[in-house]
Amino acid sequence: MSEHDVFLADCPARTTLSLVADTWSVVVVYGLGQGPRRYSDLRERVGGISKKMLTQTLRKLERSGLVRRRVLATAPAGVEYELTELGRTLLEPVGVLARWAEEHADAIAAADSG
Amino acid sequence: MSEHDVFLADCPARTTLSLVADTWSVVVVYGLGQGPRRYSDLRERVGGISKKMLTQTLRKLERSGLVRRRVLATAPAGVEYELTELGRTLLEPVGVLARWAEEHADAIAAADSG
Repeated sequence: MSEHDVFLADCPARTTLSLVADTWSVVVVYGLGQGPRRYSDLRERVGGISKKMLTQTLRKLERSGLVRRRVLATAPAGVEYELTELGRTLLEPVGVLARWAEEHADAIAAADSG
Repeated sequence: MSEHDVFLADCPARTTLSLVADTWSVVVVYGLGQGPRRYSDLRERVGGISKKMLTQTLRKLERSGLVRRRVLATAPAGVEYELTELGRTLLEPVGVLARWAEEHADAIAAADSG
């Protein structure tokens, strides 16, 4: 159990929620669900993300201990990203949310145009 | 099963994810989980939200068919918000994400300052 509460403005839980409750964070974390990916591979996987936004999102996730960056000893040098142990705990929540969006997209679109 | 895919930039699933994968949407939907709430009551529940942001968030959720607004025949007139049937399907995903944030806030804060 935790004494933290997302309803409280100044609670660390709110800060943490703000970190992950954003579209790009959800899609990037979800996109790392199958294992490590190179930057270019991840950019291909996450449709529509700009280099700037992918870099920003990865830096934010890295700073928060959710993602690990690794420089590969290849030529040319590549960079790989993977979820940390902490990051893997986020896979279920983002998966549940992403699948909800996939399953309810038609209903939402219908309401929006109704 | 759905043919929609949040990894595709132009997919309705991505649009739907963008609608709900944001801090205020998550907290407001979660805050309506116990049943209808008056505007003022909801604003008290969701710590730190401005009137403008709460109104915008509720309008967005209403337009998407997730929330229903009802004018109460009281004096002074009150306004109440509640989740629709579609909105209630979102309770589990936002609950899972909010609880994740509450449970992992300390680990994230530790990583961030480390």
